[in-house]
Order: sequence, then C-alpha cells, then structure tokens
Amino acid sequence: MKQSKLLIPTMRENPNDAEAKNLQLLLRAGFIRQVSGGVYAYLPLAMRVLKKMSKIIEEEFEKIGAVEIQMPTLLPLPLLEKSNLDDYDGKAYNLKDRNGKEFVLGSVYEGLISELIGDEISSYKRLPLTLFQTTTKYRNDKRSRLGLFRSHEFILSDAYSFHATTNSLNEMYQAYQKAFNRIFERLGVKVKSLLGDSQINGQTDVLEYMVLSESGDKIGCFSDESDYAADLQAATSAFTSKKSHEPHKEMSKVVFDECKTLAQAAEDLDIPLQKTIKIRFYIAGSQPVLVLVRADQKVNELKVKKMLQVQELKVADETQAEQYFNSPLDSIGPVGVSEDCKIYADLQVQDLANALTGGNEVNTYLKNVNPDDDFPIEQYADLRLVKEGDISPDNKGTLQLKKGIEVGRMIKVGTYFSERLKTAVLDENGQHIPIQMGYYELGISRLLAMVVEQNSEQKGINWPAEIAPFDLHIVQTNMDDENQTVLTNQVEEMMMEAGYQVLVDDRQERGGVKFADADLIGCPVRITVGNKADEGVVGIKFKQTQATIEVKQEELVSTLSILMSSES
Amino acid sequence: MKQSKLLIPTMRENPNDAEAKNLQLLLRAGFIRQVSGGVYAYLPLAMRVLKKMSKIIEEEFEKIGAVEIQMPTLLPLPLLEKSNLDDYDGKAYNLKDRNGKEFVLGSVYEGLISELIGDEISSYKRLPLTLFQTTTKYRNDKRSRLGLFRSHEFILSDAYSFHATTNSLNEMYQAYQKAFNRIFERLGVKVKSLLGDSQINGQTDVLEYMVLSESGDKIGCFSDESDYAADLQAATSAFTSKKSHEPHKEMSKVVFDECKTLAQAAEDLDIPLQKTIKIRFYIAGSQPVLVLVRADQKVNELKVKKMLQVQELKVADETQAEQYFNSPLDSIGPVGVSEDCKIYADLQVQDLANALTGGNEVNTYLKNVNPDDDFPIEQYADLRLVKEGDISPDNKGTLQLKKGIEVGRMIKVGTYFSERLKTAVLDENGQHIPIQMGYYELGISRLLAMVVEQNSEQKGINWPAEIAPFDLHIVQTNMDDENQTVLTNQVEEMMMEAGYQVLVDDRQERGGVKFADADLIGCPVRITVGNKADEGVVGIKFKQTQATIEVKQEELVSTLSILMSSES
Repeated sequence: MKQSKLLIPTMRENPNDAEAKNLQLLLRAGFIRQVSGGVYAYLPLAMRVLKKMSKIIEEEFEKIGAVEIQMPTLLPLPLLEKSNLDDYDGKAYNLKDRNGKEFVLGSVYEGLISELIGDEISSYKRLPLTLFQTTTKYRNDKRSRLGLFRSHEFILSDAYSFHATTNSLNEMYQAYQKAFNRIFERLGVKVKSLLGDSQINGQTDVLEYMVLSESGDKIGCFSDESDYAADLQAATSAFTSKKSHEPHKEMSKVVFDECKTLAQAAEDLDIPLQKTIKIRFYIAGSQPVLVLVRADQKVNELKVKKMLQVQELKVADETQAEQYFNSPLDSIGPVGVSEDCKIYADLQVQDLANALTGGNEVNTYLKNVNPDDDFPIEQYADLRLVKEGDISPDNKGTLQLKKGIEVGRMIKVGTYFSERLKTAVLDENGQHIPIQMGYYELGISRLLAMVVEQNSEQKGINWPAEIAPFDLHIVQTNMDDENQTVLTNQVEEMMMEAGYQVLVDDRQERGGVKFADADLIGCPVRITVGNKADEGVVGIKFKQTQATIEVKQEELVSTLSILMSSES
Repeated sequence: MKQSKLLIPTMRENPNDAEAKNLQLLLRAGFIRQVSGGVYAYLPLAMRVLKKMSKIIEEEFEKIGAVEIQMPTLLPLPLLEKSNLDDYDGKAYNLKDRNGKEFVLGSVYEGLISELIGDEISSYKRLPLTLFQTTTKYRNDKRSRLGLFRSHEFILSDAYSFHATTNSLNEMYQAYQKAFNRIFERLGVKVKSLLGDSQINGQTDVLEYMVLSESGDKIGCFSDESDYAADLQAATSAFTSKKSHEPHKEMSKVVFDECKTLAQAAEDLDIPLQKTIKIRFYIAGSQPVLVLVRADQKVNELKVKKMLQVQELKVADETQAEQYFNSPLDSIGPVGVSEDCKIYADLQVQDLANALTGGNEVNTYLKNVNPDDDFPIEQYADLRLVKEGDISPDNKGTLQLKKGIEVGRMIKVGTYFSERLKTAVLDENGQHIPIQMGYYELGISRLLAMVVEQNSEQKGINWPAEIAPFDLHIVQTNMDDENQTVLTNQVEEMMMEAGYQVLVDDRQERGGVKFADADLIGCPVRITVGNKADEGVVGIKFKQTQATIEVKQEELVSTLSILMSSES
C-alpha cells in the first residue's frame, strides 16, 4: 500500500497534553488522534493492528468453541436493573430517547446475555454454550487518563460460557486460561495472572491478567520466592500468632489539650504503632460495625464486606459517630460500645496487650487496653491490606507490590445471574437446574496500548510480527531517481507475491524524514531503496535489533525468509 | 461447526409483534433477537453474515484506494455544532457525562472527518485521500419500524474522499459507483440508482441507491420508457406550456356561507381543479412567501428551498396569516398582497386564465383571476411534486411511482465543509485552496434485511452464496444411528477439506424438525445423511431451486463442485 494514500500524521515532538507513554507513541506515530478527552479516533494504522488483534482473539476463542455475537449499545435501563446494573458503580452513561425511555450505554452484559440464554435455552442438551463479542464499551469516568489504558470508549472482547454442571464450567475456565495465554503470546505482550477480587458474592476463581507498568492504576502483590500473585485487594499474607506475654495493666484515660490523631498520640506517649488499635467505623448494609486494625496497617474493605456478606460498606460520617458514640469520628473507641454495634478485629489485634486506642470522648485516648478483656470482639479475621514485605501466604518469600494495568479477567460467575433472573434448564431427569456461567474478558484497546508501551524505544514503536500494521516498510530515499522508482516497484511486487503486507513510502520527502517516520511507525523490517538502486542493491533493517544488511534484489526474498524467521 | 454449539433459536410461528418481513424471517430463523424496540442483538448466524458483508465492502472500497478508520461514538456537541449538527434534524441521541459535558451519539461524521483532514493534511500532494469506517450509528427516531430497515442502532459503512481538484473528485465518485455496483452484485441484491435530493446547498450529484419494496418508506419515480429514475423529492417532469387562449374576464368575489376548501369551492362552482390556484404560505428564513400551484398538484418544498436558496422553509401558522393577510390561513389569496410578501408560482400556473383562488377574507374566493394581470409573480419555476403518470423529464415515457428502501447514497459534497471549517491545502503554486469532498454510504444492516426480503420464500431464507452463514448444512436425521454418525463425521471432514464452511445439525431432534430449521436458516446446500447412510449415500438439496439428488460419498466433492458453480 502506498503511504501517500494512507493518513499517517506523524509528529516530531511529544504532544504537550499526552502524559501516558502509550498515548505519546500512538499520537507521534500517527496511529490515533484525540477527538475529546478520553475519546479517540483510530486512524488507518491503528485499525490494521486492531483488526489483527481481534482476528487473533476470534481464532483462539473459536478454537475452544466460542461463537461470536453482537449485543446492542443502547441498553434499556429497566432490563439492566433487573440483572446487574447495581454492580456498575456509577460509571454508566445514561440517556433518554425522544420518548423519555431511559437507556445506558453498553458496558456490562452479563445480565442481558444470561437472560437471552434463559429465554432461548431450555435443556441441558444445548449446553455448554459460549458466546463472545468484540465491541466498543463505555465508561463514564470522572477523568480520563493513561491514554488508551483508561479511555471513555474502549474496545473489549467479552465472552460468556453457560453450563449445566460445575465440571463443565471448570473445563471451560481452564480452556480459557490456555486461550488467554496463547493470545498474549501472539500479541507479544508479557502478562501476569493474579488472584483477583470479586465484588459479587458467590463468584469464585477470579483471575486477573495484569501487565506491570509504572503508570498502572492497579497494584499486584507478588512473592519474591514463589508463584503467589494477587491483586492488592485480594492478597493475603501469612499470619503467625505471637501473643504478647505482657501482664495486662489497668486501662487508663489520656486527655490531650488538642485534637491528635492516634499516630500523634502514640508518638507523644512513646508507644509504638504496633501497640495501637486503629478504629474504622462503617455502616454495613444498615448495621453499624467497628473494624479494628493496628495503626501501622490499613483495613481491606473488600475482606470486611466478604466476612460480613454485604454488598455495601460505607465509611460512617460525623453525624453517625455522634449518634452511635456521642463522640467525634476521630476519637471513637471500642470500649463501652453498645451491643448494637458489633466489633470485628484483624488477627494481629488478638496478639496485643496494653494497647492504645480511641476513648470515645473529644481528644481522649485509652492506654493499656486489652481486647476481649476490655471490649468484646465478635470475630477475628484477616481484615488488613497487605504491605510490601509481608510474608507470602504460602510462607515462601515476602510480598513485593508492583503497579500494573489490568488487561483481562475471568470469573466463575456460577449461578449468580441464573438465580437472580430465575433462568434454569431441565437436566436429564427433567429437574430444573440453574445455569452455571463463566465470564472472560480481554481489553483490546488496553492491550494495544500495552503492546506499544512494552515494545518501543526512544525512536518509536517495535511492533511484534503478528500484529504489525505492515510486515515491511519500503523506503525510497529519492523520489526523483528513476532507478530507485523502478526498483521500488519491483521490490514491492516481489514482496507482495511472497505474501508480505507492504507499506511503500512514496512521499516526496527527504530520506531523513522518511527514516524517522519508519522508526516511529515501527514495522518489523525496513527495506531501503537508495543510492545502490542502480546496482539492484537494497538495505534491510530490522527494527527490533537495529541490525542492517545489504542484499541484491534477487536474494531479497530468500534472505528475508531466513532472517525474519530467526528474528521472531 | 456443530449446531449444538451455536445459538440458533428458530421459531415455528411468526412472532406477533414483528410486522416487517425481514424481522419475521430473521427472528424465525434465529439470526437476531430484539432487546428493546428498534434495538437488536445479532446472534451467531447474523454475525457470520454481517462479517462477510463487511469484508466484501472492505475489499471493494480498498480496491479503489480507501483505507479504514474508526471514529468514536461519543461526539462532543460543540465540535458537531461547529461542523454539521444542524443538518441532523433532531434525530440525535443526546447525553451528558458526569462532568456535565454534552455529547451526541455518532451518526454523521462529515464535519468531524473534514476537520481531521484539515488538521492533518496541508498540501495537495497528500490528496486524494479516502477514508471509510463500518460502525454502528444511532438514530433517535420517534418510533422504530420496518425491522432492520429503520432501527435505532444500525450498521453503516461511510466513506469520505478528499481532493484538491474537482476532476479528482469526479473520478473517485465514478469509482465509487462501480464499487457500489460490484458490492450489490456480490451481496445478491437488486438495487436501483436514483437522482437524489440534497438538503445542503452546494452539494451536487446526489445519487440514492434504492431497493424496491412494498414496505419501503421512500418513493422513487421511474420512467416506463427510459432510464430516468429519481427520488420523489428530486424528480421533475416534462413541462410544455399550453397557454390558455381564453379572453381574460373580470375578476369577481364569491362568498360562501360556510368554510370551504378550494377544492370544495371549485366543485360547487363547477370549475375544474386544473383551473384553480392553491396557495401555500411559508416563512423562508425570515421572509414571508406565497407559493402557488394548481389545486390538483402538491408543492415540492425542496424545490422551493433550492429556488430561494434557504436552509429553512416553514409552513406559516394562523397567527402569521392574520399578521400578513388579515385572513384565515385557508382563505389566503394572491391578490392585493403587500410587496413584502413575494409570490412564486409553478410553471403550470402561468398557463392559466380566469382561475379560481383564495380571496383573503373569511369564506371568500376569487373567480376569473389572471396571474400577472391581477397579481405580480416574482418568478415561475418547477415547484410541484411529480405525480404518477407525469411525463418523464427526458420526454420518454411517463413516470411510475414505486416504494422502496434507501440502502446507499453518494454525494459530491464539494467545498461545503472546508469552507465552513476553513480547511484548505496549498496547491502547487503555494495558494490556499479549499478541499473538495465526496461522501459515500452503504447501510449494512439495511442491506442484510434487504437481502433477506429479496431472497426468501415461505419456508425461510435463501442466502446468496457469498454471504451465506455457512455454505453447507449437513443434517443427520437419526442421531442414534451409528452408520449415520460415522458418515456425517466423514462428510463434514471432506467438505471442510474441500474448503466449504459447514454447519452440522448434531442435535438430538427428529429429522422433520431439522429439515424445517435448515429451510428457515437457508444455507445454499443441504446434505442429508439419512436412511442410505449404510450404503454411503447422502442426499443433496439446493435451497434456491429445491432440486434434490442422491450421491455416493466418494462422488460428493466433485458433484458439489460442478453443481454449486452451475447454481450460482
């Protein structure tokens, strides 16, 4: 294809307003343009890459029996409310049509597709069945950032498997893991799988696929000595009880002249943070609860929600503190609390003796507090957020925390939706059984951005062979040189006959400009038709290794065939 | 592919709420499901057809140098207002993001893409350039109807060509006509091209592609003796002046006791409609104008707009009638009108003598009115809507009016957007010249529906070979017959090796159910593995011709190869 017929608006300088590396590279190399914050147009080169990516996903998904569908974008609000909009976290774009009917722009389809299956499938004989779609989804984020990692419009492949038995679901879940791994390999992107967090009760085996990146908005926890890897919210650490043997002292009140945090109070009193108890006051559903961790730790609210089996956990406000404790939020303590308010504590709290904690009065703390003696604990559990250096839960190594971007996810959704929507099939005994479901998603535009970030250097992108916009980039250095023009045309034809996808820079530009653009665009191989055109000699440059050689025209096909297979 | 792994929910009966034929067929054959009024989910079979259709369009568009892009769906309102939202006729879906920023769901992209080109292309050397996208678009119609012919979400291929010269635009416009014709042929759909109407001044050569259909919402006018074909709004008819030779009589007033229409008044007075003058009172921009046609004709408002070169032409209301004529709207007449209100008349009016028209007073008409004598005519022009039986404008035959569905359109947009957006390129002399633009669109989901309506019979769809969801449908009549199962598997493998796309009905159903479903789904060839499986004999049935033969397994490939090429 002639470059003059494509729209590839390269830029010499980094655009001012592009902070994310993927955005800088894709803008500079002329693959995309921003239409509005977080909303992008995919130009011809990006389209070629996206189509190759979608094709790979289609091939790998179809290999394991999935079939493609396309659900609409305009989702009627009542239908969503019936299924799963409340998992949606306020990130929906809402709109009304001219008749006042309410819609949401498509983003989650589990409920709708579950309902479709429930309507159309009535017998276990029609299961398993796996559907997928690769479509644009919408997220009404407060602020778009990180380029294609977190855009308002994004391309997602989402697959849904339906089963009569847990065994069948388990098999498909494993098949999808293999399919994901093949896809990542073909895309040329290094991805880690982590234990993920599930916001929905009853869903199990959440697996998150994360690519490490300094600009990431997710945190993964990795053992430095084992395979343990988990999302920060899902991560646990090994806990070995080391109960304090200090004799319990008499609890006493400390009143400060001014407002102090627990950490400040501990410092003033020369008490280590490891001997303090931090209080978090939540409304779980409609119940008030106190959650206690050491002040050097943080509460993992997801763990609290799971322990309490509630969908909603809200940090209480000053009004509620006043109502339940007659105290400012900062000074709430666990001693003397009404029985209506249950107290839950992290396992570490059980080991403490003579600790410092809030006193339920303004500027007041309590010294020498002993859990169970001085206040009742409803339950001890692992409720803390893991920290860098914590012992891995398999007791092998310590946890390292690393930033990353989530590019995929799979979940055994189980019967969550079929119970909610009352969709069932008849089993071989004629009994109604709920349909089991699996969910598998891959962020296509995110993966595009990630491929770019992982495969680039200062001068531009280095596309992995299978998804490069073109295999070869032929650069004619002087458009006025007749020998070069003849040779360029011959080489283009030879290369196309040999089955390569070829981009020919036929623009009336200096060689230097063309080389710089070829570096930015990043096709795996550049063929230069330059000064030695009259001898029938062209230059080959491999983008990845920067290796260059010169070959005679007649040896070009065989040379490339050997070198490209050894390069990849 | 095994049918049990696909979701093909066929229905025996026509769904109650599906009035359109395409909807009935696509629902019954299990290709689509309705998610909400005018909003559909494409199930696996429809996806296969849609992907083949998109591929054909992609191939034909790329053949003439177009490259694919993908613009976003969330279009910022200010950007659209700058370019062309006002052509949008209130059919947009509007929404706001969580920051209150206003967006419109993508439907028209001429302005946005013009702006992109203006930003990125600065020299005539980069032109011509043609971009296209095949994406979902949105139309906020009051009411969806006609199935996929007029849905709220629809798939459209829209192409945009940019040129430095009119010659270059003309060449591309011709290339697109050929590409469209090749596409329609490959899709197996019979399409007529018509002179179209342009709502925008400066745009020329509007070509509409229409498929005749009794359920259509467009009207095409076709000469019965020539190639003349035009959209009703754009159509003209031959006019030969036959000036009346009646001596002009004295104008006189007729007052009725009650309100009468002009037609009623003419009947009472025994005056033929061909001797009456109907008045239409409009506000053109901000100017009042009267438009006169014979009462047996209708005003073509598009012709009026073009003559007056205004974007807006509104029918005046009673208040305005009172204000300008001191008369009810029904009784407005052309005599004695203030000079502020210009009078335009259709060519036929010029031939009249002693005509009947409105009297500018309640229940009053004027007899023996003579244009030019009794009131001034600013201009005579062709301002009437053509009618069935009118003489074709090429004077060959008469016009027939037929209903149809518009499936494509192309326009020489010219410099409309580049002048509006002030986008220009430098020509070879370093002078700024506005960019010329061409626009070409094909309604993919409409074409899908049209293919179905044109290629079907009572029992189901007959897919044209190139876009059939599968080439062959293998039906095993008895799943418990071991011979049949062995033969089915062998035949499937043979057929796939021979390059066919194969659907195998492996469901545990009776033969009759399977045959009925195969008829509904409509693959071009059905292969039946039935009673003669033990002899290695299968049945072949061609959907289109209903022809059936029996062949031995070993002759299947060669027989099909001969018969399928002769069938198509």
